[in-house]
Amino acid sequence: MSHVSKRHKHATEIFLAGLQAVAPGAAIRRFCQLDGNIFTVDNHQYDLDFFQKIIVLGAGKAGASMAEAIENIFTNRISTGIITVKYDHVSELQKVNIQEAGHPVPDKNGLKGAEAIYQLASSADEKTLVLCLISGGGSALMPLPVKGITLEDKQKTTQVLLECGATIHEINTVRKHLSAIKGGGLARAIYPATLISLILSDVVGDDLDSIASGPCVPDPTTFADCKSILSRYSIEKDIPENVVHHIESGINGSVLETAKIGQDIFRKTQNVIIGRNFDALLHSKEKAEELGYNTILLSSMLEGITRDVAANHIAIAREIQLHGYPLEKPACILSGGETTVHIKGTGKGGRNQEFVLAAAIKASDLNNIVVLSAGTDGTDGPTDAAGAFCDETTVDRAHALGLDPQEYLDNNDSYHFFAKLSDLYKTGPTNTNVMDLRIILTS
Amino acid sequence: MSHVSKRHKHATEIFLAGLQAVAPGAAIRRFCQLDGNIFTVDNHQYDLDFFQKIIVLGAGKAGASMAEAIENIFTNRISTGIITVKYDHVSELQKVNIQEAGHPVPDKNGLKGAEAIYQLASSADEKTLVLCLISGGGSALMPLPVKGITLEDKQKTTQVLLECGATIHEINTVRKHLSAIKGGGLARAIYPATLISLILSDVVGDDLDSIASGPCVPDPTTFADCKSILSRYSIEKDIPENVVHHIESGINGSVLETAKIGQDIFRKTQNVIIGRNFDALLHSKEKAEELGYNTILLSSMLEGITRDVAANHIAIAREIQLHGYPLEKPACILSGGETTVHIKGTGKGGRNQEFVLAAAIKASDLNNIVVLSAGTDGTDGPTDAAGAFCDETTVDRAHALGLDPQEYLDNNDSYHFFAKLSDLYKTGPTNTNVMDLRIILTS
Repeated sequence: MSHVSKRHKHATEIFLAGLQAVAPGAAIRRFCQLDGNIFTVDNHQYDLDFFQKIIVLGAGKAGASMAEAIENIFTNRISTGIITVKYDHVSELQKVNIQEAGHPVPDKNGLKGAEAIYQLASSADEKTLVLCLISGGGSALMPLPVKGITLEDKQKTTQVLLECGATIHEINTVRKHLSAIKGGGLARAIYPATLISLILSDVVGDDLDSIASGPCVPDPTTFADCKSILSRYSIEKDIPENVVHHIESGINGSVLETAKIGQDIFRKTQNVIIGRNFDALLHSKEKAEELGYNTILLSSMLEGITRDVAANHIAIAREIQLHGYPLEKPACILSGGETTVHIKGTGKGGRNQEFVLAAAIKASDLNNIVVLSAGTDGTDGPTDAAGAFCDETTVDRAHALGLDPQEYLDNNDSYHFFAKLSDLYKTGPTNTNVMDLRIILTS
Repeated sequence: MSHVSKRHKHATEIFLAGLQAVAPGAAIRRFCQLDGNIFTVDNHQYDLDFFQKIIVLGAGKAGASMAEAIENIFTNRISTGIITVKYDHVSELQKVNIQEAGHPVPDKNGLKGAEAIYQLASSADEKTLVLCLISGGGSALMPLPVKGITLEDKQKTTQVLLECGATIHEINTVRKHLSAIKGGGLARAIYPATLISLILSDVVGDDLDSIASGPCVPDPTTFADCKSILSRYSIEKDIPENVVHHIESGINGSVLETAKIGQDIFRKTQNVIIGRNFDALLHSKEKAEELGYNTILLSSMLEGITRDVAANHIAIAREIQLHGYPLEKPACILSGGETTVHIKGTGKGGRNQEFVLAAAIKASDLNNIVVLSAGTDGTDGPTDAAGAFCDETTVDRAHALGLDPQEYLDNNDSYHFFAKLSDLYKTGPTNTNVMDLRIILTS
């Protein structure tokens, strides 16, 4: 078993190397430098002498450690701030207040935090520098329905859209138009202050207007798009009347559109992505090569049905073992992104654990293989694990315990499967979030 | 458009280079040499002086061109032969008779051919050398139910197994036990003659007992397995009584098991895979590199839902364009294997055309890309095309014609989509069959 343990250890090291690259402190320090009174962000310079106040706001799973890094850079220059984070994702901060709130389902604490953030944003004037810290989860953590719409209206609308088969893009189009913060709403509140938005991307492809629904970014969608979506799925009668009415008001111009490109709002706004899945993969690749593996960085943008993506990865591992393509052994396959689980069973798990379970079944006839898939935020689905490991012994050990891997997979019960095998990977909250990393080592 | 045409031309050249490597003539000549009276097959030598007769039999889509290559090697030494091929997949042969038959649904001509093949096999004695030519489609083209079972019984059983959700492995387990030829049955008929079986693999992973259901290969499955499968899916009452009775007879020993490893039957049998998907990919890779593309051979064993596999390929192409991983541009991504289409619509298409349509939609925002996916047998699904092309103009050209690509994909109607765009790839019968090749060129 010594070689197996070694590969497990290597997989963990490779994962942690990736994580380190997107730790908010390191990521912020890479993009932001303060030299005397000159604050440089990704080659843009700000003279702090100009500003009477510096305030910090934002939301997301990585919020606390992003705020900590910013406080470390500015020491005592920050006037005040408020950020909303997921319960227990906290740090010790000096000036910035933390509001803990519900994720992925928004709750009253999220609403309370969003109101405070919006109020602080609105108080910012021309002599204020606003540092906005955005990371994954920011959308659910910062819910602020527009006037006339309740949180319940928004939730019901989301539910109807999900059930009718609308795409995530369509759902977000409607949600942005019901929110005071999303779709550039927060930037509008901050204007005429100067705004630097530092963003940790948890979105495949890193589109600025998708990350946390783009609170500081122009929105390319319109109320007319919302109306088309409702009529495309014939759901005008299923969603709350308030919502339909708000969309109609938007179309006839009696309520404001979301913020648009070219508007003054964005004249003094800089949006900077400080960390992405790709950055994590790149550092994981370096570590894997340092450990002696021929390494392929497949893509940071893999999506699709989890078990099919797993089968594709194992097909590549099999090719490596049988024919030495696309790499010679010992080899490391790296990929990132976010897959989808169609929940048909009643079990417990997450997309990473399901990926590893599906991979274990597909790889049951291969030797010398370890698979680790885990969420960079330390949370995989509604579980306390970040992900799981499998290797060539997984299926046999499961059988020895009387467990049928396929049955667990069919029941979407990867968590209990790996719990019984002691193969869960637990990191606790990592205070960052750039989707998932998948690591396959084979020799 | 000149750069687009160039990439199309390159994709075609890369496909044809792969095809050439698995053309039966080339593949057989690579493994078989006749020098005077010494016939060498993959390092095994046969002294032809020992044999009074050489006969040729077998089945599959590549049968005619395999037989032609064998006739060319042996000139007039072959006594007689019979092979079954798909309608129109014929060649001019001297000694070997051709039976054309139905594929993928077996028909009476297939039964007629199988009876003749079985009879010729049974006539072979110790002084006979049998050359058995197996290629994809051989299973459906060579149907010979065991005594007491009709072709209709077998077809009904297959249908019930498909509908209850049995895996392809389970379906083949039952089918082998209802056949006189599959699962080593043909080798049993040929024994005590010397048997050389030359095989072109159309199976992911190239398992000998799966290709054409392993007519010359020991069968690892048993009648007891068949019984477990029927009871696992509770289909004992749905399948024909004759079949249930035959399985029971097998279990109590009153009918013969399929041929098993270690039996005398296989003492004088050599099974040789002369061509695989991987061989085609390797030659495609050489051609792509010759044309100046950095090339990755991803895997010859990709399976799974066609549109997810397509999305995964485009995610890799996108990574190449955005970040230069896993390859720098200009790049070629190659893969092989056989994906699955869940038919929900009423359209016409095949897995290759569906792959390309799904890829076109996913890649609609990318520039400088060409995708070609095609079946090496020249047939994709029930169409006259081998596959299709797409590029960065596909979606726009479709819209200009009033076609909605997503609607065509949802209706599994890739054939009509690409027919209207004149982007079908037609080769006619290629007389070989090693599954599909997928080629993505991007720069």
